[in-house]
Amino acid sequence: MKMLVNAAGRPVPSELPGIGPLLPYRGPWARLEAGDMVPRILPPLRGEPPRRSKVAPSLRAAMERAGLADGMTLSFHHHLRNGDAVLPLVLAECERMGLKNLCLAPSSLTDAHECVADYVRRGVVSRIHTSGVRGKVGKAISRGEVPVPVMVRSHGGRARAIEEGSIAIDVAFLAAPACDEQGNLTGALGPSACGSLGYAQHDARYARHVIAVTDNLMPSSLTHISIPQYLVNQIVVVDNLGDPGKIASGSARITRNPVDLKIARDAYRLLRASELLAPGVSFQVGAGGASLAVAAYVRDYMREKGIRGSWGCGGITGYMASMLEEGLFDALYDVQSFDAAVQDSLVRFRNHIEIDQSWYANPLNRGCVVHNLDVVVLAALDVDTSFNVNVLTGHDGVLRGASGGHCDTAAGAKLSVVVLPSFRGGVCSIKDAVRAVVTPGETVDAIVTERGICINPLRTDLREAARKAKLPVKEIADLKAEVEALTGKAEEAPLPDPKPENVVALIEYRDGTILDSLFRIS
Amino acid sequence: MKMLVNAAGRPVPSELPGIGPLLPYRGPWARLEAGDMVPRILPPLRGEPPRRSKVAPSLRAAMERAGLADGMTLSFHHHLRNGDAVLPLVLAECERMGLKNLCLAPSSLTDAHECVADYVRRGVVSRIHTSGVRGKVGKAISRGEVPVPVMVRSHGGRARAIEEGSIAIDVAFLAAPACDEQGNLTGALGPSACGSLGYAQHDARYARHVIAVTDNLMPSSLTHISIPQYLVNQIVVVDNLGDPGKIASGSARITRNPVDLKIARDAYRLLRASELLAPGVSFQVGAGGASLAVAAYVRDYMREKGIRGSWGCGGITGYMASMLEEGLFDALYDVQSFDAAVQDSLVRFRNHIEIDQSWYANPLNRGCVVHNLDVVVLAALDVDTSFNVNVLTGHDGVLRGASGGHCDTAAGAKLSVVVLPSFRGGVCSIKDAVRAVVTPGETVDAIVTERGICINPLRTDLREAARKAKLPVKEIADLKAEVEALTGKAEEAPLPDPKPENVVALIEYRDGTILDSLFRIS
Repeated sequence: MKMLVNAAGRPVPSELPGIGPLLPYRGPWARLEAGDMVPRILPPLRGEPPRRSKVAPSLRAAMERAGLADGMTLSFHHHLRNGDAVLPLVLAECERMGLKNLCLAPSSLTDAHECVADYVRRGVVSRIHTSGVRGKVGKAISRGEVPVPVMVRSHGGRARAIEEGSIAIDVAFLAAPACDEQGNLTGALGPSACGSLGYAQHDARYARHVIAVTDNLMPSSLTHISIPQYLVNQIVVVDNLGDPGKIASGSARITRNPVDLKIARDAYRLLRASELLAPGVSFQVGAGGASLAVAAYVRDYMREKGIRGSWGCGGITGYMASMLEEGLFDALYDVQSFDAAVQDSLVRFRNHIEIDQSWYANPLNRGCVVHNLDVVVLAALDVDTSFNVNVLTGHDGVLRGASGGHCDTAAGAKLSVVVLPSFRGGVCSIKDAVRAVVTPGETVDAIVTERGICINPLRTDLREAARKAKLPVKEIADLKAEVEALTGKAEEAPLPDPKPENVVALIEYRDGTILDSLFRIS
Repeated sequence: MKMLVNAAGRPVPSELPGIGPLLPYRGPWARLEAGDMVPRILPPLRGEPPRRSKVAPSLRAAMERAGLADGMTLSFHHHLRNGDAVLPLVLAECERMGLKNLCLAPSSLTDAHECVADYVRRGVVSRIHTSGVRGKVGKAISRGEVPVPVMVRSHGGRARAIEEGSIAIDVAFLAAPACDEQGNLTGALGPSACGSLGYAQHDARYARHVIAVTDNLMPSSLTHISIPQYLVNQIVVVDNLGDPGKIASGSARITRNPVDLKIARDAYRLLRASELLAPGVSFQVGAGGASLAVAAYVRDYMREKGIRGSWGCGGITGYMASMLEEGLFDALYDVQSFDAAVQDSLVRFRNHIEIDQSWYANPLNRGCVVHNLDVVVLAALDVDTSFNVNVLTGHDGVLRGASGGHCDTAAGAKLSVVVLPSFRGGVCSIKDAVRAVVTPGETVDAIVTERGICINPLRTDLREAARKAKLPVKEIADLKAEVEALTGKAEEAPLPDPKPENVVALIEYRDGTILDSLFRIS
């Protein structure tokens, strides 16, 4: 057990207790180009007498029938956003059952999952795989309260980890906004509708046992199906899946913040300069302020020039859905719906296509959607002069973000643009080295701030095009100095000693190698 | 290596060279009720560099890249019906490559696949898994020309066999009526459209390597997707997938044959008597004369009484699609489209749902569609006084039929009705013992002929209901005697000695046990 320095120059352990040996990151494409074979693991088929009702008398009964026991791995999806009540409900029942040392493997943790910190403290949960964390859970992880270091994965990386058995799901709990008695289910219909169930689709296929939890057991057969009956073992009916106001969060609006708009406009100009905004363009933007605002500029341009794109993908906003309806894309590939406007579109339009997590971003399958992306525009918490991006930790080093599809899309897209304000809370957004590398600099083509655009030196073609278009291109070190002349040099929280025993979380790159380590913060 | 007598009273080998040990049939539900665990096998994930074009320069190049070698297993689907040119094209290329001893695992063999008999003779093919065979291929098998005994499986059994690795597909060739450059594909669009790709969906998920063969490479992204890109390794473009006239066979019409109509009417009366034709009924009929005609009676009844069913399933005919459009069902579950009328329905109606082979009928998954069936009406070649059904061999014992979903639906449905004329070609359709048991008598509730209805003695409730409804119920032995009084007793071809070395094909029951053996015919 020792620390190595990986191809991103980051200290990573060679192995960890409770996890085992670890592969260091070797570069964004090394494992794909080597043609590495990764075995896949499926749970066995198991005969059951026919015509048995799948509807369990209670959650407890379903959990007992699933054979839940200490140390097992439970998966959840986060499609209900900040309104999810299912994960807390299940963990409460686990505690009542006296279960200990469970491993949580949600697709991500949201504000609705603050209770996880308490279950960690009480020994119900001792291991976590996730894409993101917030608030109390992030603090608990950063303090080293989770006995086994937490694995942070991208959406594509999670798909791979589930297929290869690194996340071996014993029981998947699928919050199901609509479900019929055969177990067919969808997220697109019902009072707790949330749109796509892209993450849950994958869990259902690989979990040893699948329990659908629904507040909407349909009397007749479902005619819009996200997950087919033959993947579902049991159905549990509850009063509601959560807080409808927080599940069906309003449609994302374009920001009016002038800084964000300035960033978005310059990012859009860079997209233009790249000449990728052509017929057939494929496109992803985040739901955040500046990144979503880029879509508004792109939309105007596509309308004006009569350009029709091939597809948009990712977490889909109502804004992207309206671009589909307007005919600006042939199709949307929707792994996760960011706002309430999306579920109508999913039901109405055949070319609004629900895709699973592997289809979206698994780097080791036969071709995920993000590997065909032309353009992605992504947000960041901070970046560094090597173009590495951090979307996980705040200035204090505490976990408070999500890996999401960030490194997947950055790697896959022909042009990946990171947008962020040059400083936040009086602290410069460009560091010498970010505290958590989620997306390696080699896969980031440009960083756009309101004070200038930095082009990755690897992309001489793009730099040339941006200069020709008279964009405000700056060297990243120069921009950093310029911002720090305003903000002053921030005092960084001291870095803990980078020893294996201080590791509280690992950032796994999408291909299964270890990209970075997060250390205990006292 | 010895012969056993299984729970259906049939002689089956304990093992066979080239196949290994075999489990004898123990009853239709024994393996499900025992909760037998069956390991599943998935090929490994394998990294590939991104943005590599999937379009191969030629079929030959694709086959070489897939690493095709002697003895490998190749799968195909039969959704192109009697028009398929892809299987012959691939086998011709295999022969040019000098490949030997291949194992063929199509979902079934049709009239378009007569060439297989020649490839067997020339040593290119030495093993076959199939649901059905016709003409020359059936004769070649029955004569014992295939070196390893042929495995005949139902659709549900094939799904299970693929998942458990009994059929370990090295390369799946998917005839793709429409395909985009990412490898997304569908059967519902294009000049060679064939409707559902339910069998191919399953192959794509489990094959080690997947080659889509298309005559319709779409310039833009497909918006109706049957099989997602991430399951497809390569794309081969050919001039055409086959004979469009035979792919898009005309819409199945209701028979005018008076014998079939009489049978259909009595079958319908039995359905009425069973009281299953109620709101929410689920329903499957075959595409053949009398069985499809039952749907016409049912349709009139549902209209008259204002009954809306839950769903229809199976091989779907245009007739069933028109019942969906009329609102007589909530949904159709379509694993295979029987006629050209269906593909429009698949594209137009969201509740016409394409389902894969496992969803349809795999007995060991978490709930296939046929296990929720209320009523199925099935055809037969002949039956016996134990209600066993043969849909495989003619009076001469030669293979000329298909197992299809026969035993799957008979087992799953609350009421399974077999319809057939009391004699064909001057030979009584009721035997003392059929020569090939495909569907065990325990799962057949009634046999309807134009001369009377025989109810399985296990179903005393149904017998009572039929008598109350004044249906022409007869004991099966009596009906047999009555028919034989007209036709005379047929002279049966002599049965070969039931020794393991005389076995030319095995009929595997859907759960993986051996239901019957077919012996060499000289």
